Amino acid sequence: MKKIITISREYGSGGRTIGELVAKILGYKFYDKELIDMAAKESGLSPDFIEKTEQNISSGWLYNLLLGASYATNTTGIGITGSSSSLPLADQIFNTQRAVIKKIAKEDNCVIVGRCADYILKNSKDIDQSSLFNVFIYANLDDKLERSTKKYNVPEDKAKELILQIDKRRANHYNTFTDKIWGRRENYDLLINSSVFGIEGCANVIANLAKNN
Amino acid sequence: MKKIITISREYGSGGRTIGELVAKILGYKFYDKELIDMAAKESGLSPDFIEKTEQNISSGWLYNLLLGASYATNTTGIGITGSSSSLPLADQIFNTQRAVIKKIAKEDNCVIVGRCADYILKNSKDIDQSSLFNVFIYANLDDKLERSTKKYNVPEDKAKELILQIDKRRANHYNTFTDKIWGRRENYDLLINSSVFGIEGCANVIANLAKNN
Repeated sequence: MKKIITISREYGSGGRTIGELVAKILGYKFYDKELIDMAAKESGLSPDFIEKTEQNISSGWLYNLLLGASYATNTTGIGITGSSSSLPLADQIFNTQRAVIKKIAKEDNCVIVGRCADYILKNSKDIDQSSLFNVFIYANLDDKLERSTKKYNVPEDKAKELILQIDKRRANHYNTFTDKIWGRRENYDLLINSSVFGIEGCANVIANLAKNN
Repeated sequence: MKKIITISREYGSGGRTIGELVAKILGYKFYDKELIDMAAKESGLSPDFIEKTEQNISSGWLYNLLLGASYATNTTGIGITGSSSSLPLADQIFNTQRAVIKKIAKEDNCVIVGRCADYILKNSKDIDQSSLFNVFIYANLDDKLERSTKKYNVPEDKAKELILQIDKRRANHYNTFTDKIWGRRENYDLLINSSVFGIEGCANVIANLAKNN
């Protein structure tokens, strides 16, 4: 049985919704960006957890995260003021997310969307690799345009550019923090087109494969 | 229902066997390279079929194919002696295969392995696109090494090089005759790792998706 399912996805492919459905079908916990960040903040309050994060992330930085200092406010690549860590902020965020993802994956059966979780867990020695299932969801452009305009209220004339930009950003983030290329088959166990099989169809395939393997 | 299933695959991934199993489960006809070449030869005997091939392939070339003239004997890229076509031999072969694949796909429910069938059929206006299901099978290197040494009797010290070479050749062929890149998700509806889900497991997923979509 696959107990840890990671979902990577193109923007507008419905990957997040598919992940939620898979978690619901299997009775697994569900985590996306917001929930991981929340978990990171909560974890930041636990000195015990902080000690466990592998790159010795400063509590000063976690305090700043708690107070809402965002990545966007620091584009110099230099550590945030007051942080005792010499790591750039982006690295600190990645390291915290990594620690949180590993903690989540060890605690309970779960579905994790985004955040390089596939790579982080595939390269974690303390994760049972046979329980890990890495999925990539993609879709045809027309469906991504429709989803982004109808579900996320993106203006029609901006939708295509936005889709390309967000996926480019996701790819850049992945390619920066891993030694792999985002969306390439070798990183995943399954890649499935949600335009062809639908949101529920994809969720059922993933849930069945998780149950039977 | 998906009536035409194409299987593209890494060498040693078991993709051909998965294709055969899918065909058996669904009661579809099965075609691989040999059977397509055979169909091309048979078609070559029919003047009616020759007329239908879109690039006016010479019966002279088909006659040569029948007599066993192979691609390898002509690496100049210049048409085979005696051919009335000005197309290089590789193009002539591709065009015949294309015509045969389109003919096969229109005749009956089928599984077709390799030969750029995914691209050919995705770009055929006279193929009902909702009946087409393009799959890519890949596997972990260890399993490909094992399959190539045990099933195809490749010497162990040559296996890795051979796997890389054959896949490189497949990629080059695909990238030459299509405007796409071999193995990239956008060409397929599903990409699945046979190391994770097994030969039968993959075949069942594909057959079920074909039945229910």
